[in-house]
Amino acid sequence: MPLTGQEVAEHNSRESCWVIVHGKAYDVTEFLPEHPGGPKIILKYAGKDATEEYEPIHPPDTLDKYLEKSKHLGEVDMGTVKQEDKEFDPNEEARQDRIARMPILEQCYNLMDFEAVARNVMKKTAWGYYSSGADDEITMRENHTAFHKIWFRPRILVDVEKVDFSTTMLGTKCDMPFYVTATALGKLGHHEGEVLLTKAAKKHNVVQMIPTLASCSFDEIMDAAEGDQVQWMQLYVNKDREITKKIVQHAESRGCRGLFITVDAPQLGRREKDMRSKFTDVGTNVQSGAATDNSQGAARAISSFIDPALSWKDIPWFKSITKMPLILKGVQRVEDVIRAVEAGVQGVVLSNHGGRQLDFARSGVEVLAEVMPVLRERGWEDRIEVYIDGGVRRATDIIKALCLGAKGVGIGRPFLYAMSSYGLPGVDRAMQLLKDEMEMNMRLIGCSSVDQLKPTLIDTRGLHMHTTSVPVDNLGMAIYDPLVNPREKAKL
Amino acid sequence: MPLTGQEVAEHNSRESCWVIVHGKAYDVTEFLPEHPGGPKIILKYAGKDATEEYEPIHPPDTLDKYLEKSKHLGEVDMGTVKQEDKEFDPNEEARQDRIARMPILEQCYNLMDFEAVARNVMKKTAWGYYSSGADDEITMRENHTAFHKIWFRPRILVDVEKVDFSTTMLGTKCDMPFYVTATALGKLGHHEGEVLLTKAAKKHNVVQMIPTLASCSFDEIMDAAEGDQVQWMQLYVNKDREITKKIVQHAESRGCRGLFITVDAPQLGRREKDMRSKFTDVGTNVQSGAATDNSQGAARAISSFIDPALSWKDIPWFKSITKMPLILKGVQRVEDVIRAVEAGVQGVVLSNHGGRQLDFARSGVEVLAEVMPVLRERGWEDRIEVYIDGGVRRATDIIKALCLGAKGVGIGRPFLYAMSSYGLPGVDRAMQLLKDEMEMNMRLIGCSSVDQLKPTLIDTRGLHMHTTSVPVDNLGMAIYDPLVNPREKAKL
Amino acid sequence: MPLTGQEVAEHNSRESCWVIVHGKAYDVTEFLPEHPGGPKIILKYAGKDATEEYEPIHPPDTLDKYLEKSKHLGEVDMGTVKQEDKEFDPNEEARQDRIARMPILEQCYNLMDFEAVARNVMKKTAWGYYSSGADDEITMRENHTAFHKIWFRPRILVDVEKVDFSTTMLGTKCDMPFYVTATALGKLGHHEGEVLLTKAAKKHNVVQMIPTLASCSFDEIMDAAEGDQVQWMQLYVNKDREITKKIVQHAESRGCRGLFITVDAPQLGRREKDMRSKFTDVGTNVQSGAATDNSQGAARAISSFIDPALSWKDIPWFKSITKMPLILKGVQRVEDVIRAVEAGVQGVVLSNHGGRQLDFARSGVEVLAEVMPVLRERGWEDRIEVYIDGGVRRATDIIKALCLGAKGVGIGRPFLYAMSSYGLPGVDRAMQLLKDEMEMNMRLIGCSSVDQLKPTLIDTRGLHMHTTSVPVDNLGMAIYDPLVNPREKAKL
Amino acid sequence: MPLTGQEVAEHNSRESCWVIVHGKAYDVTEFLPEHPGGPKIILKYAGKDATEEYEPIHPPDTLDKYLEKSKHLGEVDMGTVKQEDKEFDPNEEARQDRIARMPILEQCYNLMDFEAVARNVMKKTAWGYYSSGADDEITMRENHTAFHKIWFRPRILVDVEKVDFSTTMLGTKCDMPFYVTATALGKLGHHEGEVLLTKAAKKHNVVQMIPTLASCSFDEIMDAAEGDQVQWMQLYVNKDREITKKIVQHAESRGCRGLFITVDAPQLGRREKDMRSKFTDVGTNVQSGAATDNSQGAARAISSFIDPALSWKDIPWFKSITKMPLILKGVQRVEDVIRAVEAGVQGVVLSNHGGRQLDFARSGVEVLAEVMPVLRERGWEDRIEVYIDGGVRRATDIIKALCLGAKGVGIGRPFLYAMSSYGLPGVDRAMQLLKDEMEMNMRLIGCSSVDQLKPTLIDTRGLHMHTTSVPVDNLGMAIYDPLVNPREKAKL
Repeated sequence: MPLTGQEVAEHNSRESCWVIVHGKAYDVTEFLPEHPGGPKIILKYAGKDATEEYEPIHPPDTLDKYLEKSKHLGEVDMGTVKQEDKEFDPNEEARQDRIARMPILEQCYNLMDFEAVARNVMKKTAWGYYSSGADDEITMRENHTAFHKIWFRPRILVDVEKVDFSTTMLGTKCDMPFYVTATALGKLGHHEGEVLLTKAAKKHNVVQMIPTLASCSFDEIMDAAEGDQVQWMQLYVNKDREITKKIVQHAESRGCRGLFITVDAPQLGRREKDMRSKFTDVGTNVQSGAATDNSQGAARAISSFIDPALSWKDIPWFKSITKMPLILKGVQRVEDVIRAVEAGVQGVVLSNHGGRQLDFARSGVEVLAEVMPVLRERGWEDRIEVYIDGGVRRATDIIKALCLGAKGVGIGRPFLYAMSSYGLPGVDRAMQLLKDEMEMNMRLIGCSSVDQLKPTLIDTRGLHMHTTSVPVDNLGMAIYDPLVNPREKAKL
Repeated sequence: MPLTGQEVAEHNSRESCWVIVHGKAYDVTEFLPEHPGGPKIILKYAGKDATEEYEPIHPPDTLDKYLEKSKHLGEVDMGTVKQEDKEFDPNEEARQDRIARMPILEQCYNLMDFEAVARNVMKKTAWGYYSSGADDEITMRENHTAFHKIWFRPRILVDVEKVDFSTTMLGTKCDMPFYVTATALGKLGHHEGEVLLTKAAKKHNVVQMIPTLASCSFDEIMDAAEGDQVQWMQLYVNKDREITKKIVQHAESRGCRGLFITVDAPQLGRREKDMRSKFTDVGTNVQSGAATDNSQGAARAISSFIDPALSWKDIPWFKSITKMPLILKGVQRVEDVIRAVEAGVQGVVLSNHGGRQLDFARSGVEVLAEVMPVLRERGWEDRIEVYIDGGVRRATDIIKALCLGAKGVGIGRPFLYAMSSYGLPGVDRAMQLLKDEMEMNMRLIGCSSVDQLKPTLIDTRGLHMHTTSVPVDNLGMAIYDPLVNPREKAKL
Repeated sequence: MPLTGQEVAEHNSRESCWVIVHGKAYDVTEFLPEHPGGPKIILKYAGKDATEEYEPIHPPDTLDKYLEKSKHLGEVDMGTVKQEDKEFDPNEEARQDRIARMPILEQCYNLMDFEAVARNVMKKTAWGYYSSGADDEITMRENHTAFHKIWFRPRILVDVEKVDFSTTMLGTKCDMPFYVTATALGKLGHHEGEVLLTKAAKKHNVVQMIPTLASCSFDEIMDAAEGDQVQWMQLYVNKDREITKKIVQHAESRGCRGLFITVDAPQLGRREKDMRSKFTDVGTNVQSGAATDNSQGAARAISSFIDPALSWKDIPWFKSITKMPLILKGVQRVEDVIRAVEAGVQGVVLSNHGGRQLDFARSGVEVLAEVMPVLRERGWEDRIEVYIDGGVRRATDIIKALCLGAKGVGIGRPFLYAMSSYGLPGVDRAMQLLKDEMEMNMRLIGCSSVDQLKPTLIDTRGLHMHTTSVPVDNLGMAIYDPLVNPREKAKL
Repeated sequence: MPLTGQEVAEHNSRESCWVIVHGKAYDVTEFLPEHPGGPKIILKYAGKDATEEYEPIHPPDTLDKYLEKSKHLGEVDMGTVKQEDKEFDPNEEARQDRIARMPILEQCYNLMDFEAVARNVMKKTAWGYYSSGADDEITMRENHTAFHKIWFRPRILVDVEKVDFSTTMLGTKCDMPFYVTATALGKLGHHEGEVLLTKAAKKHNVVQMIPTLASCSFDEIMDAAEGDQVQWMQLYVNKDREITKKIVQHAESRGCRGLFITVDAPQLGRREKDMRSKFTDVGTNVQSGAATDNSQGAARAISSFIDPALSWKDIPWFKSITKMPLILKGVQRVEDVIRAVEAGVQGVVLSNHGGRQLDFARSGVEVLAEVMPVLRERGWEDRIEVYIDGGVRRATDIIKALCLGAKGVGIGRPFLYAMSSYGLPGVDRAMQLLKDEMEMNMRLIGCSSVDQLKPTLIDTRGLHMHTTSVPVDNLGMAIYDPLVNPREKAKL
């Protein structure tokens, strides 16, 4: 016999805390201090139906995985659960109006356009989560800006009638030299979540990297792949190496073709824009490790699934448990790339986690320019595949990275924004736009295939400078009358 | 007996598509997939009078050249053609008001002023076509900005009473060291089109380069020349070399004195501002080669008149079919200038196509600073004439280029804007302003003739840096109270 | 028998000037020309009660110290003192409203946030005094901006489960590598003044440096310390060395553990923002030494407690009068650090006085990058402790300084703003936020203790450049139509 | 018997043109084509009273000097001259209101403040004339900005109790290391004109340089000097060397102590802001040499008093006609300084004419940094005195120039603005503010006399870079949500 709403409602305290998810009740009293997002957010729903907030940020297998069976209390007669009146929310109404007036998809001409639309139509908290970065978000912005410091030295009079920008990554042939990189909580943007990206990747024959912190379960995402579609796995290493081993071996058995171990996140970053957007209500689990008011609880909780003690010593163990290629994701200086080669991994991703971890970490493409000459000097450029991610928005960004020596680039947020705005057609168009840009720009740089992309085709002299201007002379600026163009005659 | 409007109106579909241009009907059904601008734009006028949209973007000989005679259906009794009611367009009304209040010509004191007026008085789509550039338009803007990184080291106490800034380009004596470079679709800005520029060039004794994509026909533009006026020809190389040969030899026979082969446009660039300004309706022919929704049709169509397979191998052939000097227009790095010398061409134009092709291509003047020292080191500086174009707006820009070693500079958009705003008097004044600026600045730099312009007169140390500032510290900026000047006393 | 208000009121001129402070009358006629803030501000209160303006900027022992006993006229019957009607002040009313709507403390996520709140809730004059800098305030702003020119080269795969960012400064173990540096006039921000900072420093086990120009008396601040809490003393050297000696030896006897001699302020700076904010009324004592209208009086007055003749020759004398470690505060170039080592002092603070003294003085962190390589080259890095202050707002700033070789950093204004906005809980939270940031960023840079922070972890190539951009091309900017994102559909 | 208004009024055409000035009539018919400002502006007043417009821009001895006696027609009975009704001018009314609400002088805390006030209270045309520069005014703005690229390396622990910033220029002892440089048309700003500056210079014991294009006559300015006050003369060299000789020898005989020959103005610059402000009506005489519509007349006219043929060959002649020290004003590169030494002149002013001549000329201070090391290398630093002008606004600017090796700096516009706003007290305060700043900043840099100012006290590494940022990424900027500080609670 199902539980009644009244029965559940009595367990509304830290001492006894039940919640309803998808019509079933769960006793999470003991789990409270373990919750990666802190106990507060659960207690807000103590004795109530938490489905709406729970849904987008927990894969469907979460409760099975993390809550022992005895705490699964069974069905609830939802007719007896008191409906809470939703407050009228003028912001939400305005958002619905903006959704009604969204530009048609064909008006998006580049990847930035999707972001512009997404900012208008996404829920504020979801936007806050996707769009935020660490501290002052300086690295997050630098990521794309860094590409602006690289200029082309194009060749002319090269036959570019046929342009082929396919390439091979970790042995997989891809139609374009990018992959869909791992990003968390896809359902915040679209109810289908990551499987939607799986479909888009298939259509354009590019690889998708599956995130540990996906909204869909790992198996759902794998199941969404078709035919010989290739997927990789991104991994946060759990303190309990047995759990990690189980995850890795499961991924391998399901056919994953690459294991990308995140090494730039011993602790998840503080993202103030996200905190300020009130996402703290639902999203602290993935980032507020050391927030002032809950540092003990959450920090411990997180350390259960992201192990800050992960070190070079663990690499041999990974090699012992899987045959998948190992790639270190989040390498940030040449010394560590050399060490990665020596450790025998197959690849590195030069990345700063989309600017969400350490502010003032350099952009992947800047690190790439530091790394490749050293590898070439040692004759090691073929001993490891080097990828970058962060800030890629234009085909020219991709071409620049490949000229420097990258095998491919990861793209994350732009596809999330395209998905959040227009669903699958949005991601499809985003990829098609990249393809159009690739074709044109390969031609314009005078290359008909990616192996022709070489360092001599770019000018990177400005890349390494981190300059700021002398602070503005406000008094001087205030008294200067800017020149103006001729004025129109007055209206009659 | 002329056709009636009704007869034509029946052929209003992809299956049978007739259009009226200048009072004559044409069957373009079979031509639809060949149309460089895609079939859509023609179908919009299927069975109707297309003259108004057709006029500014097709030279008068277009239909003769591209549509076989059997499709020319003859006169239409225009009295029987149904007049379409024009919708009231508030934007057009506002534009007419702005035209009525245009500043008088004498208020334009520099080349930027014409652009300011043109932006106000041109049709939005025409403005969009002229003013747009590739991708983020960063190269387009860099073109002029690059000159700002070059500063003068003027000489003093030189007799500059008489200043002569005439020079010689490809053997032609010119009154000023610039030429009117080739730009497409002149009638978008002024109903007379390119012949208006011919007249202005004559008046100031400078050379005009005739564009392949002119609104006027080649012969109209040649015919507009007077006396011994010199013109050059800009060439997009057609896949069918016989057509190319015919065009080139016709030009030579008409007296053209230079053949500028465009080498920076194996495919015409995507220009998003233009696309967004709705010019797609009429203008996709010249640029949307790979647009997502019509890539097959248009790309094929374009490849018929711009051959992406053009390569160094073609140069000897060009030398075999014409005695005109050959100049490669759109060279972008020193290696290719060297190759051009070795290939025996007479000149190069260091150009990025006005920022309309490859974004992040470097400015012509920056490439010039890379090229000339290498040529001088090899003693090759007299084996080839080096020109630049892009971003030239001030006489100081011209002087800087000449100090670096350019024979002359091409100026395009500024004259289009002057023409679009004020017609021939506008272009005349624009050239006169350049002359005034030239005279003054030659004096101020301490040179009385262009052969005195040398590298020691400029400081180019900042030229090669492509820097961006560290992303702005928004929190820090937000909390800083800028200093202010003394406040006025309060009003009583 | 107490004096009456009438009796005091008669002494309201330069010839005979009495003032009431805390219910007692004082004859300051002879003191007028000696007053560091100039006579004007006292004369404004001649014959009246000056308590409200006197209070926040004079330590309680001021009158005892500086006015001879015979001028202490004793109690006043305050009932007989005429109350002055306060004018209605709309600005003050608006401020009270802003105070009522202050964000809750938990919404402050970083040190800048406190400054944002403080600007809103502080009295304009107090804000003007705290927030102002010298001349164009360019150095003041550069101080923080300089950190933005330093980027990280973080290590990966280092065990950072336990992170310890405690360190030792002048022999004192501190929980975090910063100290509360000396700042003047704490009561302008909070009625408790500097003792509030003492309590916060205790809670977080960091050192407080006691300012000479504190609002609380030195002994009050010492008395506020608890247990073995360590405090240092900042010293302006008095022309009368006997007074200096007394102050220093008193500090040592009270247990001070370091003597920081200010060497960057032979004269206190002109701060125009402060002058303009009308703080001149009450605050000229600490800064307007050479103001045009009172240069003689005030300059002489100030030279009585800040000796512009202080020189290297005085260092041995300081060593002779105290056993406290000597630290020179305000060193600004490597030559003087070397000289400091040779002079046998224990430390230097590379500082420009928070940008309040010499504009265009370089930031402490830039000087640090100049100093440490020279010290290391000489093997002197352990012969002196090097500190910096100025512009520190983020834990990453601290980490950068430590990577370069600093023992610790001083933080001043941010704690004043936190105190002025939220009192002790504000300062507590500010320090806790720094702790959270430190923990996270130490992990993210791959270091588990401060001794691992090394120069190879940062990229300082852009640090030394003091660039400004070429002045803006206003005509060019005005005519450029920026690209825009797709527009929403029109409202119906 | 005086002429009547009617008689004069009949001569109102190019054929016969009389004008009234200060109650007297003049026949200027033949003079029309000679007028440096072009005939148009005179014809506007043909047959009328021109006094009001004539006054501020012609020294009182102009008519005597340039119009032969027979054309002086004698007194006019002003009662018979028809008064023209002045149109009501709302701009002038607004200006008068701004004058009424001018800040009191004591609120000006720096030289920029005077400019802020002047902009508000000056006539638009006068402001346009003083404040404008060449072309895009980039050099004009760079002049001050260049100082911002120089930062200090101050010394500490130097006895700076007594600070002496007097120095010697061309043998004259001055209280401060600046001089009042020559600027044209002083009466546009203040009815007293240049003699007001003479008085201020006397008060502060600094040298005044008398401009050729003064509103007062040379003798008036000399006469205004008191006691042993020293003045220099700025010279535009007339094509007729006899006139030049007369001027120079008169100056010497009147006691001038230096002859500053302007060498950066073979032709006066085009200043578009000035042209646009409609000052063309009254001011074209001094600048519009090559304006499109009047190039022939005015250019010839100007060449009569500024000889573009002036060259190094003339230097010996100058040495033959005067014993005054010769100084070349407007030198802009080291090669010419060397040549100046070889030519035996006593000094150079590194100057770009306040940014009014050649745009993209480098700042004087940048050229200084190029010049002095070369002179020192040759041991020539004492063979010539090097001055700079342009952009000096702060005592720190002066100190920087002296550290680099300048003997002194010229200051022009700031004193014009102070004069235009507040008359003599304004200029007095401006100089006093510089003195206050000098005293403070000499102390803060650790120098007690100007001979201690050395290159090691500054860091000029950023000075030589002329960088611009990569053009702004508008799409990227548009989609970035800047971080914000905590929001206030909503109003109730």
